Amino acid sequence: MRKIIATASALGLLTTGAMAEDALSVQVKHAGAQASTVGSAEYFTGAVRIDSPFKGTGSARVGGATVTFEPGARTAWHTHPLGQTLIVTAGAGQVQHWNGPVQTIRPGDMVWIPPGVKHWHGASGRTGMSHIAIAESLDGKAVEWLEKVSDDQYRQQP
Amino acid sequence: MRKIIATASALGLLTTGAMAEDALSVQVKHAGAQASTVGSAEYFTGAVRIDSPFKGTGSARVGGATVTFEPGARTAWHTHPLGQTLIVTAGAGQVQHWNGPVQTIRPGDMVWIPPGVKHWHGASGRTGMSHIAIAESLDGKAVEWLEKVSDDQYRQQP
Repeated sequence: MRKIIATASALGLLTTGAMAEDALSVQVKHAGAQASTVGSAEYFTGAVRIDSPFKGTGSARVGGATVTFEPGARTAWHTHPLGQTLIVTAGAGQVQHWNGPVQTIRPGDMVWIPPGVKHWHGASGRTGMSHIAIAESLDGKAVEWLEKVSDDQYRQQP
Repeated sequence: MRKIIATASALGLLTTGAMAEDALSVQVKHAGAQASTVGSAEYFTGAVRIDSPFKGTGSARVGGATVTFEPGARTAWHTHPLGQTLIVTAGAGQVQHWNGPVQTIRPGDMVWIPPGVKHWHGASGRTGMSHIAIAESLDGKAVEWLEKVSDDQYRQQP
C-alpha cells in the first residue's frame, strides 16, 4: 500500500485525493503550531498580538483568532458585514459602539456586535485583555476598517 | 427626555424602537448571566454541561457555546451542514471522524470539522475536557445527530 501511495505521489496523482481527504477529515491544529503575528498599525493602536487564527472551508463563512491587547491598545473603529462574537479569555477590556457607552468586559463575558455596527474593542488603560474574535465573511470580507480611536475617545472610560 | 421615554414606554410605543436599537447596539452578556444547562442524554453519553451559549442576529449564521465533558463523556456521532470549529479551553479530550484516528486535543488546540463529516468529540477516559464549539446554521439547523458512540468505539483511544 505504501508503495502504491509513493508511486502515485511521484506521478502527481495525489493532489485531488489529498484535497478530497481534507474535506473529509477532522483537522487539528495543536497549540504552538501557528506563529503569533502582530496587529497592523494601520488598524490597531498600541501593541496587539494575534494567535491561533482559524477559518472554515467549503461553504463555511466563519473565521477568527485570539487577539491580545496590551494596556491602552485597541482596534480602530470598524464594522463587520455579518457581525462579530467576542469571548473574553483574560484581563479586562472595553467595547463601545458609536455614540454608545463604553462597556467593561472580563473573562467569560460574551459580546455580540450586530452586522454593520460601528464599534471598537480593546484593553483598558491599566490592564491588558485577550479575547477570541469570531466573524463571518461576506464576499470574502469579514471587516471594514474605519478611522482610529483617538486618545480623547479612548479616555472616555467608565 | 426621560419623561418622553417613560410616556412612550407606557403607551407601548417602544417595542419597535427597542428592536431597532438591539440591531444597532453592542450586546454584552457578562459571565454568570446565563444558567448552565445539561447536554441531552439523547445526543450525549455521560455528564455534559453547556455554558454561555451565543447566537448571531440579522443575516448571521454563527452560534455556539462552551461545552464541558466529564471523564468518559462524549457527543453522539454527528455532522454539521456548514462545519464546526472547536477551541479547547481545559482538560484533555478526543476527537475522531468516521474510520479516522482518535486524536487527542488539549487547551489551545483548534479543531476544524468540515461540512458533512461524521465525527464525535469528548473527554478522555481519565480527564474531563472543555471546548468552545462554533457552528453555522443552514436553514436554521447547525447539527444532524446520528447514533451514539459505543463503549467499544470509545475505548479505541490512543
